[in-house]
Amino acid sequence: MKLLTFRTTSGQTRVAQLNSSGAVQPLAYADGRAVDDLVALIASHVALDSLLADGPVQALEAVKLLAPIPRPARNIFCVGKNYKNHAQEFTKSGFDAGQTAADAIPTDPIVFSKTPETVIAHGQRIWDAAGVSDALDYEAELAVIIGKGGRGIAKADALNHVWGYTIINDVTARDWQKRHKQWHLGKSFDTFGPLGPVAVTADEIDGGNLELKAWVNGELRQHASTRDLIFDIPTLIETISKGITLLPGDIIATGTPEGVGIGFDPPRFLQRGDVVAIEISGIGHLENEVGAIGEVGA
Amino acid sequence: MKLLTFRTTSGQTRVAQLNSSGAVQPLAYADGRAVDDLVALIASHVALDSLLADGPVQALEAVKLLAPIPRPARNIFCVGKNYKNHAQEFTKSGFDAGQTAADAIPTDPIVFSKTPETVIAHGQRIWDAAGVSDALDYEAELAVIIGKGGRGIAKADALNHVWGYTIINDVTARDWQKRHKQWHLGKSFDTFGPLGPVAVTADEIDGGNLELKAWVNGELRQHASTRDLIFDIPTLIETISKGITLLPGDIIATGTPEGVGIGFDPPRFLQRGDVVAIEISGIGHLENEVGAIGEVGA
Repeated sequence: MKLLTFRTTSGQTRVAQLNSSGAVQPLAYADGRAVDDLVALIASHVALDSLLADGPVQALEAVKLLAPIPRPARNIFCVGKNYKNHAQEFTKSGFDAGQTAADAIPTDPIVFSKTPETVIAHGQRIWDAAGVSDALDYEAELAVIIGKGGRGIAKADALNHVWGYTIINDVTARDWQKRHKQWHLGKSFDTFGPLGPVAVTADEIDGGNLELKAWVNGELRQHASTRDLIFDIPTLIETISKGITLLPGDIIATGTPEGVGIGFDPPRFLQRGDVVAIEISGIGHLENEVGAIGEVGA
Repeated sequence: MKLLTFRTTSGQTRVAQLNSSGAVQPLAYADGRAVDDLVALIASHVALDSLLADGPVQALEAVKLLAPIPRPARNIFCVGKNYKNHAQEFTKSGFDAGQTAADAIPTDPIVFSKTPETVIAHGQRIWDAAGVSDALDYEAELAVIIGKGGRGIAKADALNHVWGYTIINDVTARDWQKRHKQWHLGKSFDTFGPLGPVAVTADEIDGGNLELKAWVNGELRQHASTRDLIFDIPTLIETISKGITLLPGDIIATGTPEGVGIGFDPPRFLQRGDVVAIEISGIGHLENEVGAIGEVGA
C-alpha cells in the first residue's frame, strides 16, 4: 500500500492511501477516527486492511502534500559512504575530513543524524543557505521506516522490523561537513531533508533491489541499485539496534550512490533555482527546488 | 530558580521548584493548570514569578525524580573536544578516528547528537552495554537549555536565548565511537545521557564561569572550569543556529574537560557497579551507577 500525508483545505492533517489509479483516499480507523499521523498508525500495529475509506477521493494534484512523516519524533538516522563508488568519489573530493584513500571504503557503517525539522515535502523549497554555505549538495537515498521497534535485533529478523520505505534527499552543506569534522551540522540545516512523496509498505517492494535515479535540472546525475549497498538494510538495523532501541516510525536513510555534486571536478554545487528530482522504483518521484525560505519548512 | 521534574505516587509528571531549603514545591500556571512539562513551560514564555505553588511541599528524597527534561523533543546537540587538555588526551588515546596530533585542537566546533532516549534521571542506571561494548566512558558536561528559539542568532545576542543550565553525563562507548567514525552510535546507546538533577535558570548562574567536578567511585577524575571552553556558549549558539533553527527546550551539551577514562594509560573504562558522580557549582549533584537495564530508561 502507498500512503501519504496531506493537509486539508480546513488545515487538518490526514493520512490517505494513494490508490492504484493515482487518486488520494483519506483513511479512518475501524472505529471511525480519522488517521492523522502515520507514525501513530505504525505504532498502533493496526492492520492496514482494517482501515476504512473516509471521505471522497481527490486527485493527487489537488491536495497539499506533506512529507509522509512530517515531523519524525527524533533525528533521522543516516548512513554515510554506503555505496563503494560514492565512498571513493567522496574521499577523492577532499570533503571527507581526515580520511585518506586507504580508508575510503568503510569497514563498519558510518551513522550520523539529521534533525527532524530538516523534513520537507515534495514540492517544498530547499533553503539555498545564502550567506551560510556556498557548497550545497544533493544525496538521493532510500529511506527505511521502522515498524516494530526493539534493541538487539538480529540481522535474520531485521526485515520483520521494517514497516516500509520512502525517498529522502540527504541535502548537505559540504563546507560545513568538512569544517566541523562531525557531519551533524552540515546535514541538519532547515529544509535539508526532503522526504516522500509517499511511504510504501514493505510487502510491496524489496528494499534491497530498487532502482534509484536523481536528476538536477533534468540532467541525470545518480543512477544505481540498492543491491549495491555496502551494508544492506538488515545489517544497518542490526548495527544501529545493538545499543539503541529502535522505535516505530524511526527513519534510516541508507546512503547515497555515486554522482553527487562533489563527485565532479570542479564540484557542481546546487544554486538557487536548481531543481533536484529523485525517483526510486516502486516508490515515486520526489522533486524540490532550491531557493529562499522563511520559517522552518515554509 | 531551580526547577525539577518528578513523578507523583499516582503516576503524574509534575514540574516543581526546588526551594532554597531544599524542598520540592509543585507548580501550577496562573490559571491553575499543573505545570507538567518543563519544555512546554519554557516554550510558553510565561514569567516564572507568575507560577503558583500547587500542593504540599515534599522532601527531595521523598519524590521520584525524573530528568528535568525527561524526553527532549529531538536529539541533544553535543560538542566534542571543547576543552584543550581533553582534546589532547582524546587524540593521544587513539580513539579519535582519523585525527592526528596536528589537528587535536579543533578550529571549529565539532557537533554531533545523542538520541532523546539516552536521557535518564539522577539515580537511574547507566546500561553497562554487556556484550555490546567493553569501553564505556563518562564525560561530565555543562548542558545549556535554549529558551527563545531562532536561526541566525548572533553571538552578542546568544545569551538572551539561554533559558538555563543543567548537568549531563555524555556517556560514550569508545570502541563504537572509533569504529564507526561518526560518533552518533557510540554516544546514543539507551541510558547514555544522565541529565539533571535540576535545571537552573540563567539569571542565577554564569554558564561561562562554573566549576565542574566528576568522580568515579569517589575518586576525583575531572575538575575544570567552564571558563576554559575552547568555544564559549555564545559561539556555540551562533554556530549551531546559522543553519538550524534552535527551538525552546533544545539542549546543547558543551563538551567535557580532561580526565575521562581514555585519558589514562591503560584506559580506565566503566564497569558494572561503578558510580559516576558529577557536580557543577550552582546546579547540583548528578549520580548514576553502571549496571543492567531492562527497557529504555528503566
